[in-house]
Amino acid sequence: MSHRVLVNGEPAAMISVFDRGLSYGDGLFETIRFVHGVAPLWSRHMDRLREGCRRLRLPQPDPEALLREAGEVTHGIVHAVVRITLTRGVGERGYAPPPSPTVTRVVAGFDAPLMSGEAYLSGVRVRWCDTRLSAQPLLAGLKHLNRLEQVLARAEWSDPAVAEGLMCDAGGWVMSGTMSNLFAVIDERLVTPALDRCGVAGVARAELLAARPQAVVSDLHPTDLARASEVFLSSSVRGVLPVQAVGDTVYVPGPVTRALQQHWRDLGFPMEQA
Amino acid sequence: MSHRVLVNGEPAAMISVFDRGLSYGDGLFETIRFVHGVAPLWSRHMDRLREGCRRLRLPQPDPEALLREAGEVTHGIVHAVVRITLTRGVGERGYAPPPSPTVTRVVAGFDAPLMSGEAYLSGVRVRWCDTRLSAQPLLAGLKHLNRLEQVLARAEWSDPAVAEGLMCDAGGWVMSGTMSNLFAVIDERLVTPALDRCGVAGVARAELLAARPQAVVSDLHPTDLARASEVFLSSSVRGVLPVQAVGDTVYVPGPVTRALQQHWRDLGFPMEQA
Repeated sequence: MSHRVLVNGEPAAMISVFDRGLSYGDGLFETIRFVHGVAPLWSRHMDRLREGCRRLRLPQPDPEALLREAGEVTHGIVHAVVRITLTRGVGERGYAPPPSPTVTRVVAGFDAPLMSGEAYLSGVRVRWCDTRLSAQPLLAGLKHLNRLEQVLARAEWSDPAVAEGLMCDAGGWVMSGTMSNLFAVIDERLVTPALDRCGVAGVARAELLAARPQAVVSDLHPTDLARASEVFLSSSVRGVLPVQAVGDTVYVPGPVTRALQQHWRDLGFPMEQA
Repeated sequence: MSHRVLVNGEPAAMISVFDRGLSYGDGLFETIRFVHGVAPLWSRHMDRLREGCRRLRLPQPDPEALLREAGEVTHGIVHAVVRITLTRGVGERGYAPPPSPTVTRVVAGFDAPLMSGEAYLSGVRVRWCDTRLSAQPLLAGLKHLNRLEQVLARAEWSDPAVAEGLMCDAGGWVMSGTMSNLFAVIDERLVTPALDRCGVAGVARAELLAARPQAVVSDLHPTDLARASEVFLSSSVRGVLPVQAVGDTVYVPGPVTRALQQHWRDLGFPMEQA
């Protein structure tokens, strides 16, 4: 499934067992969709990565080197996903960050996962997860390497007919999917949960919010979701996916979903690969 | 600083960039103090590791293989620390755990850090950290690989005269140090915070609680700590360390601290290496 990998710019497939990415999850990642060698949301991914480096006090990345390496690992793949991982590099034992870390940079190319055209047309089935997202404002929004909550949530089901699980915070507010962000149309307003306490602020979410400035970022309760007229998921890898059911609650893709799917296509992303 | 490393039983220093330990922090670790090739708290470390594997649904480790490998990487080191890291192994992209993972096992030997005899005699200085521990009952107590909160907390100071930082949860309750557990004597009772919402349930803490069955596991507020007659830290690597000051609040090592230091020595741990 994986193709080419570069570690600090060199073809490689291994990193040191003393890398702080392994020891403590001390780093960040991005998963970026490429189509015919182009990543329409590249600059948004770089924005989030820069912001993550600032907040974790990691040295800032070199976007030109990353773009060159992403091009290298996706060469010849029409529909690709690039995972960029940045860690605080090799360290001595102990949590104290080295004063001048040498960042480890892993750039890996994969085939993009294929979703059926039917999923984009009729929507996907979604479930509620029992695993809650804990509140940590210092890390909220970032795509950092501490992802055990998502692993535990995703381990709650194996039925391939269920495409995603929704996660709430400890207070019972809906936050996101395990690997996607959530949007709903409620009282004719487009709403997506605030992610200043937990969750990953997706690049696709940022793109959709920019495309719909009238959208509202706000707390969202499961009872609000139950009365939504449209529900969809956003993901930089999968695009705009209508939700046809959350548990027993059924939805029908509506005009807002369709308009944002069209926006997604206009960016250059196909949504009917299989 | 590091000596020998075994990856899945073979001398090696690298792991796959696709290891889920790096990708998601999907794994656990232990840091175990060895003296002349013996780890007095070995069975407690194995208990915690087993419990962690159970809760993260990782295959159970083979303690005999781990002990053999720990002996190998500490051979000839009088005062050693062994870090054992277990991850869910190499995985495809995505949070879903492989149904039958092949665990990655890293066993690395280090020289034990040397604390001064003065630290054990007079105590160490400690500060308050601004970084809070988030509440996640599903992970609380485990020594898992998602340790960004500890990294951020430890990055708050670089003054070598400050040996440790204390962390509170979001509600302002004192939980632990960044790399140690906290005990206090308050109204003549030995108290240590409950760790069912966050924090790492240390092996040294478990040993001291077993040695003092009358000790109380309970929520601890900073105002309680301020009026404690004794405060000390526990760590399987560093032992029982009296606290001489938390910020501006000064303490003097007292009889409970001294008795538990003696317990520590009786287990076979020296506390005056340097």
